[in-house]
Amino acid sequence: MRQAGRSLPEYKAVRGPGSINQAIADPDRATEITLQPVRRYGVDAAILFSDIVTPVHAIGFGIDIKPGVGPVAEKPITSSDDLSRLRPLDPEADVPYVLETVRNLVVELDVPLIGFAGAPFTVASYLIEGGPSKNKGKTKSMMLDNPHLFQQIMDRLADQAITSLTAQVEAGASAVQLFDSWAGCLSPQMYERHVMPSSQKIFEAVGKLNVPRIHFGVNTGELLTRMRDAGADVMGVDWLVPLDVARERLGPDAILQGNLDPVVCLAKWPSVAEAVREVLARNGGHHGHIFNLGHGVLPELNPEILKQVVDLVHGEGSAHLTDA
Amino acid sequence: MRQAGRSLPEYKAVRGPGSINQAIADPDRATEITLQPVRRYGVDAAILFSDIVTPVHAIGFGIDIKPGVGPVAEKPITSSDDLSRLRPLDPEADVPYVLETVRNLVVELDVPLIGFAGAPFTVASYLIEGGPSKNKGKTKSMMLDNPHLFQQIMDRLADQAITSLTAQVEAGASAVQLFDSWAGCLSPQMYERHVMPSSQKIFEAVGKLNVPRIHFGVNTGELLTRMRDAGADVMGVDWLVPLDVARERLGPDAILQGNLDPVVCLAKWPSVAEAVREVLARNGGHHGHIFNLGHGVLPELNPEILKQVVDLVHGEGSAHLTDA
Repeated sequence: MRQAGRSLPEYKAVRGPGSINQAIADPDRATEITLQPVRRYGVDAAILFSDIVTPVHAIGFGIDIKPGVGPVAEKPITSSDDLSRLRPLDPEADVPYVLETVRNLVVELDVPLIGFAGAPFTVASYLIEGGPSKNKGKTKSMMLDNPHLFQQIMDRLADQAITSLTAQVEAGASAVQLFDSWAGCLSPQMYERHVMPSSQKIFEAVGKLNVPRIHFGVNTGELLTRMRDAGADVMGVDWLVPLDVARERLGPDAILQGNLDPVVCLAKWPSVAEAVREVLARNGGHHGHIFNLGHGVLPELNPEILKQVVDLVHGEGSAHLTDA
Repeated sequence: MRQAGRSLPEYKAVRGPGSINQAIADPDRATEITLQPVRRYGVDAAILFSDIVTPVHAIGFGIDIKPGVGPVAEKPITSSDDLSRLRPLDPEADVPYVLETVRNLVVELDVPLIGFAGAPFTVASYLIEGGPSKNKGKTKSMMLDNPHLFQQIMDRLADQAITSLTAQVEAGASAVQLFDSWAGCLSPQMYERHVMPSSQKIFEAVGKLNVPRIHFGVNTGELLTRMRDAGADVMGVDWLVPLDVARERLGPDAILQGNLDPVVCLAKWPSVAEAVREVLARNGGHHGHIFNLGHGVLPELNPEILKQVVDLVHGEGSAHLTDA
């Protein structure tokens, strides 16, 4: 469960008042933060505590993660002159702390560790907009009006993602997830033409590592087949697409991750339990299912509810599999 | 094109510095603002200048539209005690200015006038959250934890929408559109159980008026069949669902409205023209197509681009129909 930590009191205690980048750059803290939700919830995998803009930050592009805002780039990319700030990532030199965190974690953990990277489109949107953007107007305009520059950005970010994911797996991560969080703002045609090739390049390259490749973005119901065809072994599904509908689109053997509405977890337990059972019912006992939320955990979530979700899934999920 | 006015200099000149409610309550100004995009763009229909929260505002619920924010309710609904503020709408007494605007417009216009209402879920979300909300956490929680209270709100809002739409048609509107702008944040199951019945009630009641009934919300790819089955004659489609995909889901005879990405209209003309042609190609010359944007017009849009869009559609659209 992505961002499962941020609603936890023990997270707030260790996280410190500084930028999230400081916590990511401190392997002891990053290790502890990664372990916290595994310890509290007893989930079946851990996801590395890091950020999708960590590599771009580390190479000195000039991006910071502002609390309550998100990634902010003081000098967004407007022309090819800005490309020089997007040099290749050298993991051992640029993000040694990430690799140390991964190495610590594989010693500490009894469950698999999922490494991750931001997909080129989603990372590019921050670099082009200069920060979080509701409409992604500058990104879409550059994509259509200046496809050459846009593709150069995408290509550099794809190479960074490949280098980063490879280093994480070599350090011990058991699976990789590519987060194309905002790809869902694109029509399928725009995704296919301008975004899919870069993600395809990443999945092809990390395919050599022989670890499961997970792909996820929110609002991607219309993109599911293309995102899978980019080379994902597992498709993350948001809460808008019932799992049986996702399998109608992706085929009956599709391996899916999802898809409880994280907002529903703000309701009372009987309502949440019903929604959990609905997800399991829509999966229908299929073995290719990783139960998860359909998006990140909300900071205001009550951790007790999430604990009950995990316990219910561990109970009912097994029942479903036994029934199947 | 919804909110086509707000990017126009002539709109800014007439609109005045006050609340949008003041402009809506002034039939001369509201008439002029409705006419402006028709005059400038030569579109084939006009959409009334009003707001989805105008009826709730008019009955004294206590909601205002704050510039740059949106509808804000000082005292959101938290218990059944708040229901007394949601009394039935008496159009002639509560919103006489809306009806006067409609009557003015049908005299002035050479094209049909589309009246509209906010769908109960979308309006309820403002009344329960107290304002615009990214996650609609309070709304979803009330829907699941206190379905009785939630349904009472929905029912009162459905009755208001029926009364409002009926009065608009009786005053001369030629079609009605129900905006369930935020329904797309709901899983299909939640939509079907908690939202669809109220919208169904509205469409059934306005069916007696014998005018086309249009239904629209953004991010509703997974809800299209249910929103149509609620009783819509025309389904508005956002830019994420290509029109041919929408017809796969809705059947080959479906009448669709949409679906150019409004953000793409911020790009340069050759890019916009290509996107317009793509929409027309996806429609494939089908007669059941109302060309539109896939969401509201962005305030920062260059009106010259929108003029070119309309001209291109009038040229190519006719060519498509002639070819068909």
